[in-house]
Amino acid sequence: MSRLTQRRPTKAAQPPGTVEYVGKHKVENVGITVLDYGPACCRESTPAALAELLPHRDSETVTWIDIDGLHDTELLQGLGAHFGFHPLVLEDVVNTHQRPKLEDYGDYLYIVVRMLSYDAEKRELGSDQVSLLLGSRYVFSLQESWGDVFDPVRERIRNGKGRIRNHGPDYLAYALLDAVVDNYFVILEQLGEEIEELESLLVEDPRPEQQRAVHQLKREMILLRKSVWPLREVLAGLERTESELLRPETRVFVRDVYDHAIQVIDVVESFRDMLSGLQDLYLSSISNKMNEVMKVLTIIGTIFIPVTFLAGVYGMNFEHFPELAWKWSYPAFWAATLVVGGVMLSFFRRRKWL
Amino acid sequence: MSRLTQRRPTKAAQPPGTVEYVGKHKVENVGITVLDYGPACCRESTPAALAELLPHRDSETVTWIDIDGLHDTELLQGLGAHFGFHPLVLEDVVNTHQRPKLEDYGDYLYIVVRMLSYDAEKRELGSDQVSLLLGSRYVFSLQESWGDVFDPVRERIRNGKGRIRNHGPDYLAYALLDAVVDNYFVILEQLGEEIEELESLLVEDPRPEQQRAVHQLKREMILLRKSVWPLREVLAGLERTESELLRPETRVFVRDVYDHAIQVIDVVESFRDMLSGLQDLYLSSISNKMNEVMKVLTIIGTIFIPVTFLAGVYGMNFEHFPELAWKWSYPAFWAATLVVGGVMLSFFRRRKWL
Amino acid sequence: MSRLTQRRPTKAAQPPGTVEYVGKHKVENVGITVLDYGPACCRESTPAALAELLPHRDSETVTWIDIDGLHDTELLQGLGAHFGFHPLVLEDVVNTHQRPKLEDYGDYLYIVVRMLSYDAEKRELGSDQVSLLLGSRYVFSLQESWGDVFDPVRERIRNGKGRIRNHGPDYLAYALLDAVVDNYFVILEQLGEEIEELESLLVEDPRPEQQRAVHQLKREMILLRKSVWPLREVLAGLERTESELLRPETRVFVRDVYDHAIQVIDVVESFRDMLSGLQDLYLSSISNKMNEVMKVLTIIGTIFIPVTFLAGVYGMNFEHFPELAWKWSYPAFWAATLVVGGVMLSFFRRRKWL
Amino acid sequence: MSRLTQRRPTKAAQPPGTVEYVGKHKVENVGITVLDYGPACCRESTPAALAELLPHRDSETVTWIDIDGLHDTELLQGLGAHFGFHPLVLEDVVNTHQRPKLEDYGDYLYIVVRMLSYDAEKRELGSDQVSLLLGSRYVFSLQESWGDVFDPVRERIRNGKGRIRNHGPDYLAYALLDAVVDNYFVILEQLGEEIEELESLLVEDPRPEQQRAVHQLKREMILLRKSVWPLREVLAGLERTESELLRPETRVFVRDVYDHAIQVIDVVESFRDMLSGLQDLYLSSISNKMNEVMKVLTIIGTIFIPVTFLAGVYGMNFEHFPELAWKWSYPAFWAATLVVGGVMLSFFRRRKWL
Amino acid sequence: MSRLTQRRPTKAAQPPGTVEYVGKHKVENVGITVLDYGPACCRESTPAALAELLPHRDSETVTWIDIDGLHDTELLQGLGAHFGFHPLVLEDVVNTHQRPKLEDYGDYLYIVVRMLSYDAEKRELGSDQVSLLLGSRYVFSLQESWGDVFDPVRERIRNGKGRIRNHGPDYLAYALLDAVVDNYFVILEQLGEEIEELESLLVEDPRPEQQRAVHQLKREMILLRKSVWPLREVLAGLERTESELLRPETRVFVRDVYDHAIQVIDVVESFRDMLSGLQDLYLSSISNKMNEVMKVLTIIGTIFIPVTFLAGVYGMNFEHFPELAWKWSYPAFWAATLVVGGVMLSFFRRRKWL
Repeated sequence: MSRLTQRRPTKAAQPPGTVEYVGKHKVENVGITVLDYGPACCRESTPAALAELLPHRDSETVTWIDIDGLHDTELLQGLGAHFGFHPLVLEDVVNTHQRPKLEDYGDYLYIVVRMLSYDAEKRELGSDQVSLLLGSRYVFSLQESWGDVFDPVRERIRNGKGRIRNHGPDYLAYALLDAVVDNYFVILEQLGEEIEELESLLVEDPRPEQQRAVHQLKREMILLRKSVWPLREVLAGLERTESELLRPETRVFVRDVYDHAIQVIDVVESFRDMLSGLQDLYLSSISNKMNEVMKVLTIIGTIFIPVTFLAGVYGMNFEHFPELAWKWSYPAFWAATLVVGGVMLSFFRRRKWL
Repeated sequence: MSRLTQRRPTKAAQPPGTVEYVGKHKVENVGITVLDYGPACCRESTPAALAELLPHRDSETVTWIDIDGLHDTELLQGLGAHFGFHPLVLEDVVNTHQRPKLEDYGDYLYIVVRMLSYDAEKRELGSDQVSLLLGSRYVFSLQESWGDVFDPVRERIRNGKGRIRNHGPDYLAYALLDAVVDNYFVILEQLGEEIEELESLLVEDPRPEQQRAVHQLKREMILLRKSVWPLREVLAGLERTESELLRPETRVFVRDVYDHAIQVIDVVESFRDMLSGLQDLYLSSISNKMNEVMKVLTIIGTIFIPVTFLAGVYGMNFEHFPELAWKWSYPAFWAATLVVGGVMLSFFRRRKWL
Repeated sequence: MSRLTQRRPTKAAQPPGTVEYVGKHKVENVGITVLDYGPACCRESTPAALAELLPHRDSETVTWIDIDGLHDTELLQGLGAHFGFHPLVLEDVVNTHQRPKLEDYGDYLYIVVRMLSYDAEKRELGSDQVSLLLGSRYVFSLQESWGDVFDPVRERIRNGKGRIRNHGPDYLAYALLDAVVDNYFVILEQLGEEIEELESLLVEDPRPEQQRAVHQLKREMILLRKSVWPLREVLAGLERTESELLRPETRVFVRDVYDHAIQVIDVVESFRDMLSGLQDLYLSSISNKMNEVMKVLTIIGTIFIPVTFLAGVYGMNFEHFPELAWKWSYPAFWAATLVVGGVMLSFFRRRKWL
Repeated sequence: MSRLTQRRPTKAAQPPGTVEYVGKHKVENVGITVLDYGPACCRESTPAALAELLPHRDSETVTWIDIDGLHDTELLQGLGAHFGFHPLVLEDVVNTHQRPKLEDYGDYLYIVVRMLSYDAEKRELGSDQVSLLLGSRYVFSLQESWGDVFDPVRERIRNGKGRIRNHGPDYLAYALLDAVVDNYFVILEQLGEEIEELESLLVEDPRPEQQRAVHQLKREMILLRKSVWPLREVLAGLERTESELLRPETRVFVRDVYDHAIQVIDVVESFRDMLSGLQDLYLSSISNKMNEVMKVLTIIGTIFIPVTFLAGVYGMNFEHFPELAWKWSYPAFWAATLVVGGVMLSFFRRRKWL
Repeated sequence: MSRLTQRRPTKAAQPPGTVEYVGKHKVENVGITVLDYGPACCRESTPAALAELLPHRDSETVTWIDIDGLHDTELLQGLGAHFGFHPLVLEDVVNTHQRPKLEDYGDYLYIVVRMLSYDAEKRELGSDQVSLLLGSRYVFSLQESWGDVFDPVRERIRNGKGRIRNHGPDYLAYALLDAVVDNYFVILEQLGEEIEELESLLVEDPRPEQQRAVHQLKREMILLRKSVWPLREVLAGLERTESELLRPETRVFVRDVYDHAIQVIDVVESFRDMLSGLQDLYLSSISNKMNEVMKVLTIIGTIFIPVTFLAGVYGMNFEHFPELAWKWSYPAFWAATLVVGGVMLSFFRRRKWL
């Protein structure tokens, strides 16, 4: 499927609310990790069966249930039934080409964001969908495969470092969103260095490969924007939401991550401007270089054209050709050649063509 | 008529509210299909006369009346009189070049959307107008010709699959809009693949045909935007409408299809950016390639220019020409030729022109 | 006066509210046509004197007073005094370079729109100002010269066709605005066909005339936008106006013509995009064509350069020149020529330069 | 100081509210003109001392105090103290690089606009700051130097022509703003004519001077926009202001001058579009012209290349060279030359290169 | 770290609210300067220990605490604890890549702005973060290193010049913001002069260095915009804030500095437009110049091509070659040469190629 369109082509025949994973089954087994914590305690477990998850809905502690792998339809529908998730939510969880969004279902908030990765060699951005479900006592995080940017959050919960253990699930959701946005800066850092490197290469010695690199980076920017602009809306919506799931003291943190998202957008837009500038620079550099070459070559040609004509003249076989018999003809020819060449060169130099 | 303007040129002399079909009479006979269903039952019929349709206005069951072909003015005016449709609505139904829009007439909502098709060979988008009339117990769908994207919806009603049979006509209208928007993704998928194919061709070997293809795709994007931007407004309006015809539990579904419309717009805008990028890439590729050619050719020419001059010199017929009699003149000439050629080549190489 | 600025340069010294016509006195005599109608009756007259117009202010019937020619200052001031028009309104009526606008003066609405015409040969848009004054029992339409787009409306009133005779002056004003906007579609149709024709010419055989035509059309688009964007605001304002002069049942019609104005804007913006695309297409086509020429010519030159050098060599007059005496020298020369030419041609072909 | 930045570089070390003129002391003496008028009377005076101005604050008549020259700090501070002007207002009056703005200080409104002049030879816009202070019985107008666009207003007051003498100071302020905006049209008229002249020159015979003229006009447009966009805000603010200094009957006039400002913006934006179009036209014209030249020249060269080669061949000195002895060789050579030339010409013509 | 992204890459693993300076430890020692003043008094001190600062929280006088250097984490946390600053505020203070912003924490306002410097030689903008904390009796200003733009403010406080000593800390905060914005004008002045100089160089003699300079300036503009657009929001927010920390009489001053920020944005946007214009000018100038060169050279070549062919013809060795024996052949050859050259030159001149 094209990387550009990013949506299920097969769904058309399905009724809305159908929970069928459309991705590439990135993982073999669905991995479930549960972190159950409070100010004083922290329990970690990897339950194998759905039944073990259900009690967390009503427990007093905060529970973070992280699910890696989305093809186990039964599991998801079981969860949905027990936790009361709307069928459209489950459909969006498994259709992993969603635009980032925030939806308030009263009992829980549904948040979709995209986690980025960057393959520097192919110059290709990858983006994985992360679904967060924030309830009054739990946070679900669902994604397609193993490997995420949440390890620092896990560490903080385990160590009891920072204030995370003393806050509710809304703070946890904030921490996860913050980790996602922080990761954007890592990606941007990489892209920024590539752009600056490209710039210095372009100034020194412009080459078609660089033009292609600029084009690729521009394309990735288009994809990047599709992740970050809606993210801003998600965070703005979260800050303004009237839902009681988000406590007042957490809002200041949401505003902080919102500020970071704005900063990401600023940087992305700067990159777009930079890349347009590089495109212009490339075109005028290549044209400068080319013109330089053509000019010198044409000048060399032009200097020899009149003297070659002269040599042709004295190669003619007319019988009545007085100069041929003159004694100083040949040296005079060379003298004329040097004079013509010199005059043309100085003419070119005077008009600043050399 | 030009594909760009899309509006009745003949109407000028008609009073507003005139119901006269302006299209190309795409179908021979008007086809009417009625699907009448409730949670437990589902009846399908193809009534031949207007009278058979009239009772559905007040029946308890949900009725979907699908009309293919718009040239039977009498039929439409009969329907309009019985169901109470405003003359401007009927006028817009048959003037099939409307912009997508939503109008609330109190007893019913009038929705215009455009159904797309794509002819990959001519690289031309086609767009058919679909008019939906959503009343309290019925949905009318009217279009110019046979063939639509509604088959999955029909299947779901017939099979009783999904929740469609348990909901009212507002859910049916949603399902139809969803089918239309889902079809957009199919079209975008095709366009996306064409764009990516074009991109890889352009990088390998840029040709004028590709430039023309880029131009055609850009033109189709202009047309596509004219369908999707107003569609977004229609769906946003539908989500926010105060009409009681749209029940609260259906709104979450409308929001879902609205999200998809936004996603369509995102993709269309990305495509536009991509195509601008391809345009730039084409221009700089063709200019790179061209310059490469010219450079090598000019260099070949330049290397031979001085030595051709030398040959001309020794072809002169002066009587006093000492070199001509020397024994090693001829080998010396070749040696000079090789030296000059070598010096110029290495000069070109040193300045990175080769 | 420049077509671009469109405003009275002489006014500076006049106090605001001065009623002095600044146009080119397009008509000899001011033509006044009165259509006075109700559901059952319709009287048409062409009064010669101001006094005949005055009773229409208070009559029960709807009166449409159409004035062609604006240089009779006395007439206008007489009307203004009797009907209570603000001096600024009269000033704007005669200063025929107004931007479309809507002004609510309580007793009457003042509407300015621009009526377009297109001279296909010069590729020039003309635009005439039409002022509408909508009171409770009358509509004034004022324009600079004979000839307008209102004939269909006149016909409908005379024939009693459609609903126009049963409605008030607000519906008449709507009908006039609708006629103006419908005329825009006729103009756009013409422009659209010209653009499509240009496009197919450009693809086949790009020429400087086409570039100039693109430029002219772009310029006319700039002028066209200046008429249609404010028109949209006028119609939006009319739909939302709180004035009681516009009855509720007429609002749905105003919304309809507003929809058409939006559609006009959509088309104009599409045309602008199309013309930018044509500009790009022209530039890259001409550059493709040019490069093609230069390439072939340079290649021809290059193939002959080495062999011309060879001929020069054997034209040298050295006394010690072994090849000259050899028997097969001459055929060998031709063989070498063919080999060199063939090698270069195959080299060019291998590198895809031919 | 750069024309682009337009702001006091020396102020940094001054506390806010410092009244120190930063301009170029354009006039020798400060000129004060007072016009004191009512419906029946009109007195004109040129007071030499501050004391003569003070009574006008409370007089019943309307007073227009026009001050030309801003370097007399004492005078301004005296006025400020007596009329109660805020120090920041006085600071802005003398720092004559303000952006147009409107500030409501309760007792008076402070309005800054910019008066334009155009030096057609250098193609340079000049802009002078005009400060208006509108109180309940007076209007101050302050500017840097003699010479303004207010003469028509003065004439109207003196003659009692129009309604100006019957209105309050708010109408006077309106009249002054209207005079400023009317002057914009004069400038735009000049610019518009220059643009149209440039366009016709460019179409006929593109030259580098025209490119430079386009560039200069574009630059002036940038400066012009900086004056007119904020002006629009000023007038919009004035129309909406809740200040009682602006009487209801004057608002309709302010709306009128607001309309004119919008029209100015429309024209400026059109000019920008036009100039971009000219830029494109120039580039493609110059490239058309250039390509035409190069093509014809290269073709001439190419036709002679093969025949020059042929002449070279028969200039070779081989001993075994059968053709040299043939009787018809020489005429045959010319025949071959004509055939080759003709074939190439017809080939070029067939491929439409000539 | 890349200048483009400007954010902590190492933070990812830290919990939010961690106060750890990420900059380059620009100063050795943290410098603390305290200015404690009222209408009548002014005390200056440089306390060495945290404890000396604490009493200022509750003193009656206004206290400005200026901290240069941010790596002393303990100091900051001590201040934070005593003055009640939120941990996120302290985190943002030390993470010196913040976007300008305004945050209202009830007891105090947190303001981030960026102070610019410009290295004219490298054509590089530098930007330092300045954090202001405005409480009811104090203002903190925190920055990374020594050297700021606040000296004039300090002077005014020490001298009691202006009104600063009679106002509260809100006026002080305004004065600091005004100093920062005033400094922007100094930078813009420098940039403006560079742009104008570049422009005149480009018109005279376009060179690749200038193209590079244009590119660099465009890049700096991108960075500059990232500082000034958010600054505008900060100041607009400050003007509208409902916080009681900003007294009504200070708001008019904030509006003044807001006006200046708008003016800065206007100038920056003008510069961007100017630089785009320069880019276009460069490209068309270089292309004009190049074409000029190529044209003259090609013409020289073309004039010699036919006559060189003629010389080649009479260099042929045919035995039957009547012209060779004619007496006037040689002079006739020169005559032909001159005629051909003259005809071609006049042809070129007539077609305006010379």
